[in-house]
Amino acid sequence: MTKASIPKGTRDFSPSELRKRYFIFDTIKDVFQRYGFHPIETPSVEKLSTLTGKYGEEGEKLLFKILNQGDFLAKATELENAAKLTPQIASKGLRYDLTIPFARYVVQHQNDITFPFKRYQIQNVWRGDRPQKGRYREFYQCDADIIGSDSLVSESEFIQIYDEAFAKLKLPVRIKINNRKLLQGLAEAAGHSDLLTDITVSIDKLDKIGWDKVKEELIRRGVSEPGTDKIAEFLNQGEKSFEEKISFLENFLGNSEAGRLGIEEIRKVFSYLEGINIENELVLDLALARGLDYYTGCIFEVESLIGKMGSIGGGGRYDDLTAVFGLKDISGAGISFGVERIYDLMLEHKLFPEFSESHVQALFIAMDEESRLFSLPIVRKFRNAGVPSELFPDNKKIKKQFDYANKKHIPFVITVGSNEVQTGMPALKNMQTGEQENLSVDDILKKLQS
Amino acid sequence: MTKASIPKGTRDFSPSELRKRYFIFDTIKDVFQRYGFHPIETPSVEKLSTLTGKYGEEGEKLLFKILNQGDFLAKATELENAAKLTPQIASKGLRYDLTIPFARYVVQHQNDITFPFKRYQIQNVWRGDRPQKGRYREFYQCDADIIGSDSLVSESEFIQIYDEAFAKLKLPVRIKINNRKLLQGLAEAAGHSDLLTDITVSIDKLDKIGWDKVKEELIRRGVSEPGTDKIAEFLNQGEKSFEEKISFLENFLGNSEAGRLGIEEIRKVFSYLEGINIENELVLDLALARGLDYYTGCIFEVESLIGKMGSIGGGGRYDDLTAVFGLKDISGAGISFGVERIYDLMLEHKLFPEFSESHVQALFIAMDEESRLFSLPIVRKFRNAGVPSELFPDNKKIKKQFDYANKKHIPFVITVGSNEVQTGMPALKNMQTGEQENLSVDDILKKLQS
Repeated sequence: MTKASIPKGTRDFSPSELRKRYFIFDTIKDVFQRYGFHPIETPSVEKLSTLTGKYGEEGEKLLFKILNQGDFLAKATELENAAKLTPQIASKGLRYDLTIPFARYVVQHQNDITFPFKRYQIQNVWRGDRPQKGRYREFYQCDADIIGSDSLVSESEFIQIYDEAFAKLKLPVRIKINNRKLLQGLAEAAGHSDLLTDITVSIDKLDKIGWDKVKEELIRRGVSEPGTDKIAEFLNQGEKSFEEKISFLENFLGNSEAGRLGIEEIRKVFSYLEGINIENELVLDLALARGLDYYTGCIFEVESLIGKMGSIGGGGRYDDLTAVFGLKDISGAGISFGVERIYDLMLEHKLFPEFSESHVQALFIAMDEESRLFSLPIVRKFRNAGVPSELFPDNKKIKKQFDYANKKHIPFVITVGSNEVQTGMPALKNMQTGEQENLSVDDILKKLQS
Repeated sequence: MTKASIPKGTRDFSPSELRKRYFIFDTIKDVFQRYGFHPIETPSVEKLSTLTGKYGEEGEKLLFKILNQGDFLAKATELENAAKLTPQIASKGLRYDLTIPFARYVVQHQNDITFPFKRYQIQNVWRGDRPQKGRYREFYQCDADIIGSDSLVSESEFIQIYDEAFAKLKLPVRIKINNRKLLQGLAEAAGHSDLLTDITVSIDKLDKIGWDKVKEELIRRGVSEPGTDKIAEFLNQGEKSFEEKISFLENFLGNSEAGRLGIEEIRKVFSYLEGINIENELVLDLALARGLDYYTGCIFEVESLIGKMGSIGGGGRYDDLTAVFGLKDISGAGISFGVERIYDLMLEHKLFPEFSESHVQALFIAMDEESRLFSLPIVRKFRNAGVPSELFPDNKKIKKQFDYANKKHIPFVITVGSNEVQTGMPALKNMQTGEQENLSVDDILKKLQS
């Protein structure tokens, strides 16, 4: 006998969990589609050559690798060392994110794609992380990207997409925007134009470790004491209005060409939002840095105003994502929804609409075989009319059959016995009110359709 | 530079391919749901202990196994032999079908499930088969099962589900039904009640290899010459009507208890279909055997009346699917749609409805920055009204922008220049008729919504 269990960090999803998950996916998909994004899907299994060297040393360790078929040892020589043996016995791995497969897809199919290409992708990814609350080894990502355009219209649309999707999910959020060019200007103003990455990586930790620790790290990474003062001043603009922040930047970034461009880009993105209602908080957050180093322009992050969940969305503009696969100088921008965190958050804070356990509208209960034969064409009629219906299939006690309807929250039970067969008027019971009446089949159908 | 390519036997899906695939999935899903089935999802990655020993020797070879994380060699002792080393370095594998994970799910969650449990599942599976036309290493399966009921209502509903789904897909099919108990009766009538599996396996090849070869195999498997004559007679009822076949069986199977039960079950399934319109061919096909040995009652197979594709659906009743995970004597029945074959068939024979390359209804073309600022809130208004719309984001030649609309089959282009900004009347062009007129924003929206 095999024990019925699943690997650590993976999950089964029951019908009632899927209703909630699909609610999130469908809400976001609907927004993506109205903004002109189209879905693609890529295989779960990619060549290891596609995946390796893309996720840093830490990421690399988390890749799931697939053992070659057949006698995989035939050509293996490195039998002493797991790291060296791996590439000899495994040539494929599981998708680690949706970004690299997307870049690979764009390059591979470049001749069939009409640019700018706006794609969304909602698929699962796998990471050999230590499983813990909210962290899974198999989980979904949800990305939208536009590639082949450098227009800031895209940034303004991503902000609208975040705003609309979270408004529809009834999850209030703060949408934060910043620009890598402003951070480049900061590096110049701090006298360390060569330390952009170090400064970015350090600032990115501000929320987690606080300024004192960030300052220590900056100094360790070679930033001067006066440099850290400049950085502190830059980060300290949180309370100001948008216009005050822009004035500050114009002064502070002075002659930096990058800084000037950054200000211009931010201004333009906001100008593209004029006359458009944004329901959630939208802030220019100069302390927003983002970890990934392929971003080159505007960057985004979304945090929930409910609960303490960290980021539930993020993205930005990149200028060279596809270069690693040989297609250079294609600008793009993208965002991602942290759907697993959104799910956990909405579950914890009861933000889902009231879903019935079942989408079934009516359960037919037949008292005997004759009633069953009478009922089946009616069940079919209801289904044809778009009313999901079931006939309880077995000869069980009536109470058991009502229990089934109750447990599955089926709102109506239709009972058919020899009386009902004779009169042609089944008994309709509203399971919420307890009300029961005998009606013609057509009247019952009309009731259920309304 | 990494070459942009994917592993053999895997596929990328473009937006236009996905439209067609989702059309199939959504059509079948809709039918499942109206019949009271609910979705579940199981992880892509299962423990190897769940998968091994379930798919026969050949299946076992096709399992994709995942290398353990970290220093997987630490506890490995069998460094000479791939077969023996595998369980020491891999403890997880990729889902091979949806049936075993479903059985595992039912046993694992038995205390949370209300029986009878009607679930559907549409997920991908992985098999290390040699890739060839129509055979992939990653592909979708699409199953519906009811478990915890032995009522023949289920069989009658599965026939309706097949019928409805293929009618909606406009793919005409023959739905074949038979019953393992009739085959048991046949084995008895042939004087070999102990050779049911051998007889089933041999008959299953009739379509492929013809009667002479089947007869050879039967004799090799121990069936007597007069036994094969009985079998030939049984298989030779194809031209008869349903009632004629039943009469034949009543005579032919004589005293066989299994045979009597089989006749009764088939009769009952057909009685449950009285008064219900079945659009496709439905036949009692005594030569239908099905390869899988867990079937115990009615079995189904669906074949397309268009093209030569073999089976595009199949299923049946099983009495002990969950026993291997420790839950005994739970009867169930299920069917499967061969969605990949259905996709290939519908593609080849052009059975898909006319899908536009894009779901986008309108492309806005702004002649300058002022027009762009003017257009963006209108684009948003259209999106809010449920009309998927795009603003071409870049400053490209007008011709290029119209090309984009053409290539993506966007039906309407709305041009905005300084004139249109002044009058508030953008130019709406119907890309199919070439007609163009200046209208108010509200009138354009009304046109697009109708």
